[in-house]
Amino acid sequence: MVAFEITILGANGGPSEYATQCFILKPARTEDSELIAVDGGGGMHQLRELLAQGQNDNEGYDELVLSFYEHDREPIEFFIDPRLTIQKGLSKSLLQSLKRHGAHFESANTTNKAFKLFQGITDYYITHPHFDHINGLVINSPSIYEQENTKKKTIWGLPHTIDALQKHVFNDLIWPDLTAERSEKLKLRSLNSKEIQKCTIFPWDVIPFKVHHGVGVKTGAPVYSTFYIFRDRKSKDCIIVCGDVEQDRGGCEENLLEEFWLYVAENIPLVHLKGILVECSCPLSSKPEQLYGHLSPIYLINELSNLNTLYNSSRGLSGLNVIVTHVKATAAKRDPRLTILEELRFLAQERNLGDLRISIALEGHTLFL
Amino acid sequence: MVAFEITILGANGGPSEYATQCFILKPARTEDSELIAVDGGGGMHQLRELLAQGQNDNEGYDELVLSFYEHDREPIEFFIDPRLTIQKGLSKSLLQSLKRHGAHFESANTTNKAFKLFQGITDYYITHPHFDHINGLVINSPSIYEQENTKKKTIWGLPHTIDALQKHVFNDLIWPDLTAERSEKLKLRSLNSKEIQKCTIFPWDVIPFKVHHGVGVKTGAPVYSTFYIFRDRKSKDCIIVCGDVEQDRGGCEENLLEEFWLYVAENIPLVHLKGILVECSCPLSSKPEQLYGHLSPIYLINELSNLNTLYNSSRGLSGLNVIVTHVKATAAKRDPRLTILEELRFLAQERNLGDLRISIALEGHTLFL
Repeated sequence: MVAFEITILGANGGPSEYATQCFILKPARTEDSELIAVDGGGGMHQLRELLAQGQNDNEGYDELVLSFYEHDREPIEFFIDPRLTIQKGLSKSLLQSLKRHGAHFESANTTNKAFKLFQGITDYYITHPHFDHINGLVINSPSIYEQENTKKKTIWGLPHTIDALQKHVFNDLIWPDLTAERSEKLKLRSLNSKEIQKCTIFPWDVIPFKVHHGVGVKTGAPVYSTFYIFRDRKSKDCIIVCGDVEQDRGGCEENLLEEFWLYVAENIPLVHLKGILVECSCPLSSKPEQLYGHLSPIYLINELSNLNTLYNSSRGLSGLNVIVTHVKATAAKRDPRLTILEELRFLAQERNLGDLRISIALEGHTLFL
Repeated sequence: MVAFEITILGANGGPSEYATQCFILKPARTEDSELIAVDGGGGMHQLRELLAQGQNDNEGYDELVLSFYEHDREPIEFFIDPRLTIQKGLSKSLLQSLKRHGAHFESANTTNKAFKLFQGITDYYITHPHFDHINGLVINSPSIYEQENTKKKTIWGLPHTIDALQKHVFNDLIWPDLTAERSEKLKLRSLNSKEIQKCTIFPWDVIPFKVHHGVGVKTGAPVYSTFYIFRDRKSKDCIIVCGDVEQDRGGCEENLLEEFWLYVAENIPLVHLKGILVECSCPLSSKPEQLYGHLSPIYLINELSNLNTLYNSSRGLSGLNVIVTHVKATAAKRDPRLTILEELRFLAQERNLGDLRISIALEGHTLFL
């Protein structure tokens, strides 16, 4: 039973500035006019592109996706597990919701439709305040003041995220402090790590977990990011959506990932875990000092092995969808996403993790999990 | 005689996050391997797209450009003065320079070519530190550490820009502080307003001028931006490239634009002024309180009238290329760029400014001025 629809507005881990991490989430098949997003890298431009393309009824096969390596485009099946349900563009139910809730939607032009759709994203859950995770959201933000828009936006995050956004982004220097407008159309709100919060628009629980993401170049201070669990309160189905992350740092520092996997294994029956969207920025050949607070395949597989051990199922993690985001472009011959996917599949098999379904998160596509 | 080649990586004034202001500049016809940029909105992704498209030998006619309003694409001639020399993609001499300086360039894939091209942009002149003017540059910046890259980057700006970039962007919170790396591959350097600086890679003078750009929402403090004059020291040809700007604020505040136009009229013979790239973010119908530190056609024409008066030529500003950037997308029926272009042409005629050549800056195109 499909529980979640996730439209990938961006999943690129830099250094290209286009379509960086942003996922739009909704319950499957509902026709609500409101949506949530995890991270705000991509944004209104991608929505405009998707609306201009129109809807594509096929499920993604015989389609080419942008690569810019061996060929500028490559077949979609190179990037995804064949059992993943994926569609180019926006889902039917999302388009249907726009028609139901938007007066004159059918006759509107593409830009007006994109405004409408963007305004419907009322809640952003940000994993960390790095530029590539907030880029679209910040530049798109003035559109909340467009005439006819009655909706407001709340940006949620752990304190390290919300404090940095207030102090360094919405500060009248890097961007106008729209949070200070009397209309209160844009709000910043802090969450607490490990605390269950009710999603304001869907019957979901949202549970943020603080994780490590390297240290400052100059400061040497730890940098943090966030994993989010979204749980449908009725069906108990869950997905995990991750920000940038590195393995636990050891020594006297907190074992944040260890705690996280323990929480997952104790609170989410494996059959209810519909998927994990998680970064794997760098290929296997990267030395530890080249990871800069990210994962390479060996580290991601280590984490999945830890989860597998905790679940202790005879079938391993069989059937679990692992969607890999945030792969960094490098000056390589082959698309690093394809290299990383191959390495992850090889290591998963070697470590007996069961029949995992590993795919690359492809921008401009909707996943049904 | 064409003096400057300007490739528009981005000219969009938001709220779309795609291809925001970034211009690449070089002397016409030279085949140097280094380039400068004004602002860093667009970046490596646009370079990748342009390289993938390949070179288009026609001069832009019978071509469609993205609009997303009445139609998703519109004919290019709607947007430009017919006498403007414009080409889709990168110039022949720029592509030739890459071939000359890049070993194995011909056989490289599109991503590797884009890395090479991006690394060649050694000097960024930033007009102000707003998110949409630095977005690509920041996210692209880690690519300076790619193997085989021997080049460094310097980000130049007036103190209000450089201080904000150091304190609020390259601060280990919003982005890793790459300026603190021992390799010194990324440097921030301050310029002084009205002081002539020698461009480090071209035989050009660069002269920055501080201008007004609204006030903070919360702080009420003035926000500043920059106009740059680039002058070829040999031919004396100049172009003016502007950041976001509003009219002088009057009262007891400095008359920054008045001073700027006086400098131009006194120091640049009109025949040497090859073009002005200047913002006009909002249509004529915008009320003053809706401009938020930007120009609408009436204000831009006022400024050009001031320049015209100072030049006091019998032919007015005839022959001058005015390239309009930073138009904001709104939920309108018609592409606001077309509305603004029509309004500017009408007002220029009404105010007897001479036979001005007014065009819209189109992303992904190279101008020859």
